[in-house]
Amino acid sequence: MHLPDRVTIVEVGPRDGLQNEPSIVPVATRVELIHRLQDAGLPVIEAGSFVSPKWVPQMADTAQVLAQLVRRPGVRYPVLVPNLRGFEAATAAGARDIAVFTASSETFARKNINCSIAESLQRFAPVMSAAQSADIPVRGYVSCALACPYEGDISPGVVADVAERLFRMGCTEISLGDTIGKGTPVRVQNMIDAVSAQVPVSRLAVHFHDTYGQALANVLAALEKGVAVIDSSVAGLGGCPYAPGASGNLATEDLVYMLDGMHIQTGVALEKLVATGQFISAAIQKNPASRASVALSSGKSGAAGGT
Amino acid sequence: MHLPDRVTIVEVGPRDGLQNEPSIVPVATRVELIHRLQDAGLPVIEAGSFVSPKWVPQMADTAQVLAQLVRRPGVRYPVLVPNLRGFEAATAAGARDIAVFTASSETFARKNINCSIAESLQRFAPVMSAAQSADIPVRGYVSCALACPYEGDISPGVVADVAERLFRMGCTEISLGDTIGKGTPVRVQNMIDAVSAQVPVSRLAVHFHDTYGQALANVLAALEKGVAVIDSSVAGLGGCPYAPGASGNLATEDLVYMLDGMHIQTGVALEKLVATGQFISAAIQKNPASRASVALSSGKSGAAGGT
Repeated sequence: MHLPDRVTIVEVGPRDGLQNEPSIVPVATRVELIHRLQDAGLPVIEAGSFVSPKWVPQMADTAQVLAQLVRRPGVRYPVLVPNLRGFEAATAAGARDIAVFTASSETFARKNINCSIAESLQRFAPVMSAAQSADIPVRGYVSCALACPYEGDISPGVVADVAERLFRMGCTEISLGDTIGKGTPVRVQNMIDAVSAQVPVSRLAVHFHDTYGQALANVLAALEKGVAVIDSSVAGLGGCPYAPGASGNLATEDLVYMLDGMHIQTGVALEKLVATGQFISAAIQKNPASRASVALSSGKSGAAGGT
Repeated sequence: MHLPDRVTIVEVGPRDGLQNEPSIVPVATRVELIHRLQDAGLPVIEAGSFVSPKWVPQMADTAQVLAQLVRRPGVRYPVLVPNLRGFEAATAAGARDIAVFTASSETFARKNINCSIAESLQRFAPVMSAAQSADIPVRGYVSCALACPYEGDISPGVVADVAERLFRMGCTEISLGDTIGKGTPVRVQNMIDAVSAQVPVSRLAVHFHDTYGQALANVLAALEKGVAVIDSSVAGLGGCPYAPGASGNLATEDLVYMLDGMHIQTGVALEKLVATGQFISAAIQKNPASRASVALSSGKSGAAGGT
């Protein structure tokens, strides 16, 4: 098994995680979450988004979050913006890393961002120009990279096409998201093969959901294809809007446990991360959706028994 | 990724699963569980054990379970026996498939089966002779194949040695168990490399616990090494005696979901399996510890949102 020596974990809990939780978390807690994550060694922490609070009330006041952040040198804090107006608000608030969001499913794009894929890319064009002028890196999210809740399986060629367009527009990183967690390892590798024929694999990230328990196996499949940037969410924050009660984002704790076990460097201290997951889980009155977290924080001794 | 075309799933829920649950499940429910599992297409179903009910009250009355079974042609129903006396009781009750249990950790063997590894193998010698005379296949379990709760990491060479001794004694299949779920994919592959230098890989099975969320990634790693027999437990039955509250055996539902997605044949019908997991979970008043089960049985529509 040939694997990268180092992986960059993109911690999406404070944005993609919290935005899909029913609780509205106060600014002070969001800031403390980010501080704890950087203290645990996360190098990239999605800090929030500049979308209308009418649509995503959980991400209101991201400007205040940025204002209160005590930034750590070398750590990046991307924020999601839907358009140029969002970009301007984000940079005015001090954002120095940006993300944009589209889909590889037309139906999902329509229902989620209310436009076609092509229209979403048109909206990004002025964002890309402004970002390049300001020397701000832009990450592009491609959702439904394996399956769409409305269209079913998505062809790897469609994903490669959207990813290539984002790359040519200037995105420095493309995050390929299995939004509904339906993917399995062979399909992951086929999709990455198709995309990496158009975009250098060093510019690719993967973003898996654990809805069907497949996320970590899919990460392994992606690592074998040379992908070395992995999105995850502390405590598995995020749930799954398509399957109430089901789990959502891959938990960062489970990811770090696996990478540590394979001696792949991440810079993340697992114990501090587990404590951070417990902190935010208590704040939203849930249990951490991370098996490593539960195991590491429960008693480890006990009667012998199983196979 | 080179993977087997077909995988044999060894369903361990009715034995390894239920024996590690606090509830005592009545014989009628145990029988119905096995009937439902065979109806879902499972080809090998561990039916119980012939150990003292003083030690494992959950497995008392396995003779009655066997007596009440309506066997399906082609399906195998192994039972675990600790020694020749257990073997005799098992075969008297109609068992035609046997399993024995040892460890690759001396401390675990002492604490779990109250003897050294070598002594455990001596106990098996008369079982193996009797089984060979009766043309009964014997599966050998090697627990702690990656780590021991008392000794920490276990060397692959030690595992290979125990596996080889079981194989030479006549075991037709060796199941390598990550009893405490601490393993990660590279260590899995290194361990399988060491064992398969001594025992043909076609005779090997793997048995992973999902305590740290690693089980399915570890399965993928094992499949890549040519292992094509995988143990799992419907609804993740089994818990983890070393970490209260943590999850135990790999859930068969999550395994079948992954194998289906990779077009690897198992003969198992996922929908029936999910229903079976709900049946036994209701009987022991737990929720199924399977993410695929939760996702497949919850509402699939809902508002759009996440990445």
